[in-house]
Amino acid sequence: MKSFTEKLVVHTKKEHEFVNITSKVQEAIDRSGIKEGLCLVNSMHITSSVFINDEESGLKEDFMEWLEDLAPYKPYQYPKGYRHHQTGEVNGDAHLKRTIMGREVVVAVTDGKLDFGPWEEIFYGEFDGRRDKRIMIKIIGE
Amino acid sequence: MKSFTEKLVVHTKKEHEFVNITSKVQEAIDRSGIKEGLCLVNSMHITSSVFINDEESGLKEDFMEWLEDLAPYKPYQYPKGYRHHQTGEVNGDAHLKRTIMGREVVVAVTDGKLDFGPWEEIFYGEFDGRRDKRIMIKIIGE
Amino acid sequence: MKSFTEKLVVHTKKEHEFVNITSKVQEAIDRSGIKEGLCLVNSMHITSSVFINDEESGLKEDFMEWLEDLAPYKPYQYPKGYRHHQTGEVNGDAHLKRTIMGREVVVAVTDGKLDFGPWEEIFYGEFDGRRDKRIMIKIIGE
Repeated sequence: MKSFTEKLVVHTKKEHEFVNITSKVQEAIDRSGIKEGLCLVNSMHITSSVFINDEESGLKEDFMEWLEDLAPYKPYQYPKGYRHHQTGEVNGDAHLKRTIMGREVVVAVTDGKLDFGPWEEIFYGEFDGRRDKRIMIKIIGE
Repeated sequence: MKSFTEKLVVHTKKEHEFVNITSKVQEAIDRSGIKEGLCLVNSMHITSSVFINDEESGLKEDFMEWLEDLAPYKPYQYPKGYRHHQTGEVNGDAHLKRTIMGREVVVAVTDGKLDFGPWEEIFYGEFDGRRDKRIMIKIIGE
Repeated sequence: MKSFTEKLVVHTKKEHEFVNITSKVQEAIDRSGIKEGLCLVNSMHITSSVFINDEESGLKEDFMEWLEDLAPYKPYQYPKGYRHHQTGEVNGDAHLKRTIMGREVVVAVTDGKLDFGPWEEIFYGEFDGRRDKRIMIKIIGE
């Protein structure tokens, strides 16, 4: 069994942003030399996500708008804002948004490639950006 | 280490449908000959899900109704419908519903069996059906 | 390849409760002797979750309140309550809440340790408690 670990660093320009990391993950698989196995990709932070969906700009805006509906940004003190803001943070919404989108994906590696359907693309979803964040890529297999 | 890959094809009669695939996954594990390991099961599409819950008809209707509340079907052009519909699609809701239910599950294989609690069943959740869709099963272990 | 299986038992005092299980998972990794690999942690029940977020008491209350908004407790017969309650259960909301928070996490093991960002903590999320529940820990690697 082989294992391979790599950490990507992402620094978004915007507070909320989706970054397509599919080719970065494929490059890590290439470097690993692993042909058959599983690849974990996760955000190492608790206000951002890794998820799989479609590379379509309208849909990405739909996601952001929908997340804002389900978990609104409230940069205020409790009770107007989230209880979490009693710590001095104003990112309570980002913890909730990341939960909807998910922390991680596990993807199949077959014959050295991401074994994907035609529209699957891996995204890093940032909800509290403008600073360095890390993404874990861990591959095990043979 | 052994690895095993199988792709199921599902073609639902209805636009929205839950299909119990637990026995199909166990059959793949049987064919793999793997006794101890991890099994990834994921939708290869971006408008459908793989998730684990209870095989109970009332609950399955509750899920569908709840998803419709959180991510309503809007078969209209933007701004009445989703921005994604500017591409000609009308399935924006399906991308959101799939996100709530999740793309994948990773399950433990112990002694050649799905190592499950008493009520765990694996479902394929279709939100844009009536056509062939594929489900990935990837097992690694020994 | 090595594999290691352990099942934790949790019995919460409250119906709804978050239990930090990070150290329990690390102890299982220690016992496994696995230095490089993947570790699956999942609820073996369908009304509870395993997820990763921040150990911060205000945020944990925010999560509970938010889940109650998205999937309210309705201890009534259908149609006032969920269809699932026609089975005699009153925990329809717990199935939905668990879906938002997720069934499982897959985490990287590097050099014998949980390879985590600074704020990542693993929680068991109980939405139908006061009885014995089991959590699966399955580790594969070398």
